[in-house]
Amino acid sequence: MQHYKRLVDHFRKTHKLEHIRAILGWDQAAMMPSGGNLARADAMAELALILHEQSTRPELDDFFAAAAEEELSTAEHQSLKEMHRVWQQSMVLPARLVEAKSLAGAKCEHAWRSQRPANDWTGFKKNLKEVVELAREEAAIRAAATGCNRYDAMIDLYEPGMTTRELDRVFEEVKTWLPDMIGTVIERQRSQTVQRPQGPFPITRQKQLGLDVMALLGFDFSRGRLDVSAHPFCGGVPTDVRITTRYDLGDFMSALMGVIHETGHARYEQNLPEALAGLPVGQARSMGVHESQSLFFEMQLARSLEFMQQLAPLAARVFGGEGDPLFSAEHLCACVTRVERGFIRVDADEVTYPAHVILRYEIERALINGDIEVEQIPELWNQKMQDYLGLDTGGNYKDGCMQDIHWTDGSFGYFPSYTLGAMYAAQQFAAAESVLPGLKQQIAEGELGDLFAWLNQSIWQQGSIYSTPELITRATGEPLNAEHFRKHLQGRYLA
Amino acid sequence: MQHYKRLVDHFRKTHKLEHIRAILGWDQAAMMPSGGNLARADAMAELALILHEQSTRPELDDFFAAAAEEELSTAEHQSLKEMHRVWQQSMVLPARLVEAKSLAGAKCEHAWRSQRPANDWTGFKKNLKEVVELAREEAAIRAAATGCNRYDAMIDLYEPGMTTRELDRVFEEVKTWLPDMIGTVIERQRSQTVQRPQGPFPITRQKQLGLDVMALLGFDFSRGRLDVSAHPFCGGVPTDVRITTRYDLGDFMSALMGVIHETGHARYEQNLPEALAGLPVGQARSMGVHESQSLFFEMQLARSLEFMQQLAPLAARVFGGEGDPLFSAEHLCACVTRVERGFIRVDADEVTYPAHVILRYEIERALINGDIEVEQIPELWNQKMQDYLGLDTGGNYKDGCMQDIHWTDGSFGYFPSYTLGAMYAAQQFAAAESVLPGLKQQIAEGELGDLFAWLNQSIWQQGSIYSTPELITRATGEPLNAEHFRKHLQGRYLA
Repeated sequence: MQHYKRLVDHFRKTHKLEHIRAILGWDQAAMMPSGGNLARADAMAELALILHEQSTRPELDDFFAAAAEEELSTAEHQSLKEMHRVWQQSMVLPARLVEAKSLAGAKCEHAWRSQRPANDWTGFKKNLKEVVELAREEAAIRAAATGCNRYDAMIDLYEPGMTTRELDRVFEEVKTWLPDMIGTVIERQRSQTVQRPQGPFPITRQKQLGLDVMALLGFDFSRGRLDVSAHPFCGGVPTDVRITTRYDLGDFMSALMGVIHETGHARYEQNLPEALAGLPVGQARSMGVHESQSLFFEMQLARSLEFMQQLAPLAARVFGGEGDPLFSAEHLCACVTRVERGFIRVDADEVTYPAHVILRYEIERALINGDIEVEQIPELWNQKMQDYLGLDTGGNYKDGCMQDIHWTDGSFGYFPSYTLGAMYAAQQFAAAESVLPGLKQQIAEGELGDLFAWLNQSIWQQGSIYSTPELITRATGEPLNAEHFRKHLQGRYLA
Repeated sequence: MQHYKRLVDHFRKTHKLEHIRAILGWDQAAMMPSGGNLARADAMAELALILHEQSTRPELDDFFAAAAEEELSTAEHQSLKEMHRVWQQSMVLPARLVEAKSLAGAKCEHAWRSQRPANDWTGFKKNLKEVVELAREEAAIRAAATGCNRYDAMIDLYEPGMTTRELDRVFEEVKTWLPDMIGTVIERQRSQTVQRPQGPFPITRQKQLGLDVMALLGFDFSRGRLDVSAHPFCGGVPTDVRITTRYDLGDFMSALMGVIHETGHARYEQNLPEALAGLPVGQARSMGVHESQSLFFEMQLARSLEFMQQLAPLAARVFGGEGDPLFSAEHLCACVTRVERGFIRVDADEVTYPAHVILRYEIERALINGDIEVEQIPELWNQKMQDYLGLDTGGNYKDGCMQDIHWTDGSFGYFPSYTLGAMYAAQQFAAAESVLPGLKQQIAEGELGDLFAWLNQSIWQQGSIYSTPELITRATGEPLNAEHFRKHLQGRYLA
């Protein structure tokens, strides 16, 4: 096992640099003043370079070859397999490209933070073109190495094993019922007028409510924080998980649902198997599985009438709304299950959300495969928003193609994970309910222990021991089945 | 110049890792939750190891030898000299010791954060012994390399060129007049009863006042932040300076003076010569010179009646004290020039402060030279507090030998810089006044432009181009002269 052990040491060592990168990334988004950016981008590029050098040390080739001949336990075999997968992915890119990507991404993302509010597509476009050029170069190199097409090679970074072919199949299936369903739900909700509680809701109180709900959801504050950033995210490391949100003075639900969403990501990270810390096999399985945890918390749990019976009194207390019918569980639940055709993906309800994802999927696939250029994005965006959601985004870049952070640093291939996550989450909830028959009652009473124990055992503690299909099958008894998602929407919105 | 240029590239490269270390260090103290510490300490140790490896690359030896033969400008010569000095210091320690120091320091510092409030000397002692053992090992190695004694070798890290002999001379001189002066000032102030404005002073307002005063003092918020930590400090990098303070609900002056102090450090950092960024010659000259800037801001400037005419109205507005005689400039000035024998160095007035420093100097010198052991610290501390300030700290570790962060990570040799800084600051103020005859009137009117221009040109923009004696002589017309400090105290407290 000499070489297997050397590989373990190697991955634990590079993981320390990943730790550093994660905390600095959080700092850039949540703490760093604007003038710090140039020198920081340089420092981050240097770190990326060192990480790349360490991850591609020539002796690793021999270690892997020798380890493959060693006598290993099943667990060690699983670990070795993941190490090899990660190593292959990082070997492919030349150091020059890794550094250029890091610099261009940091520059584009940083400028985006002021360009987006200024609706400055012209300024953004220039940086984005640079990012796209490098992403295409990356995709071409990765595709050549694995024999798949360019966009598939990018998907593989976030959802290993997923392909354009499979995504097309799933998304085409969704398209057969989604447009009709959106129309039917909106028609049905037309007669209900839902008046949201009136703000302003002071940020300090919104933050307190967020912390209260994180506590209810089991977030471990000795190993994490809640802060503010332009685009909410979950970052940091399992021992120190940093989640962020953004506050809207007039609407407390937006930040709150964001906090619950990120808390789902956070609990997954905080409960990964400690014994495997720092190893690829000990990490979260994939972006889709990660998103299934955030959407399990936000969609399956938090937007249910049962959970709202816990949430509503907390919100009423923080904002002085006790006794106010607008703060009743039923009413708040009606607010957060309102379906509307809107511009902003992160504000979208769970029924229209897949339309936002499919739109981005189609654009970024064409962009990476070289079928379209950056200049065409706004027009395509507008056309697809018209087609899928009947909305006009012409000229409104900040609520259109500039709304997301993902493309700014070249994370093409990520978006499909959101809708895969929604499907995995619906499937997991159905499975949990089948083994926990009193689940909905427990949720209504704030007794979440059994549910979290199920998630912990079925998903969190499994790390990357199994492939996504195996993990989902072991947890739910069957591979990915989009029908659970359709049934969930049907049950919540059309029952 | 081929080799000189290679050295420039090398130092700019390693500086990026120093950048990372600085931001992570700030995060550890100001942001990180307690559970994050172990993994973070590991990650920091890995970073320290990489930095050490890079700083001690064998080819640097040849680069320096070859660069010494190259035709260089005066500026390049100065730069090369500083690079060589820094290189020699980092070459001396074996990688094993660098990593062990980083780990032990992080462990001791982190535990100290809860041990101090718990007055847990027994727990702290165990970690500190480990830190001291490693510091002694470090001192022995450095001393052997330079032929000086062990404690001198540690001083050299913070105040290059300073020696135990010179410190003894200066501190013995101070001892000839300080005890008498303390007694006389306290006697003289006995008749004045100074009633401080009554709190509570909400933290959000204290923070607002701090930000207002930082703005008045020219802090560049596009390249820096203000946060909270157990022990206030100035960290980060010149493009992103992170200062911290701690708030006392019952006394707004404590945090405010801390903010002003750190703002002095911050302005030095923010105004170092940009063209020399990332090079040793572009960094702040020494800890003593750094402290001279913070004490220039806090002592020379902020505690003067003139500056208080700007500060008092700001404080009155923030806390609703307009018209209240307790918020008058004269009264607030009396509050912040009150001399008292106290336990806490960071809360000490400028008259008793040197006694705190001399006490620590004598203990840490004995500790590093092996004349005493960690177990003897509390007894020695108590004895010297009795001798110098007439105070009993027996059993009160948290306000005694556990009050400072410096020893927790092995920064022995640092303390003398504080009193050297106070002396440099008094000397600089006297020099500035001699060329700016209307200075005190300008300060009273909040016109600080001429003064900051003088500091910028005399100190900040000089980086490490000159040695400390040269820098001080060029700025003030003479080398270190403790008489300016005595005259300053005499003028403020006994005029």
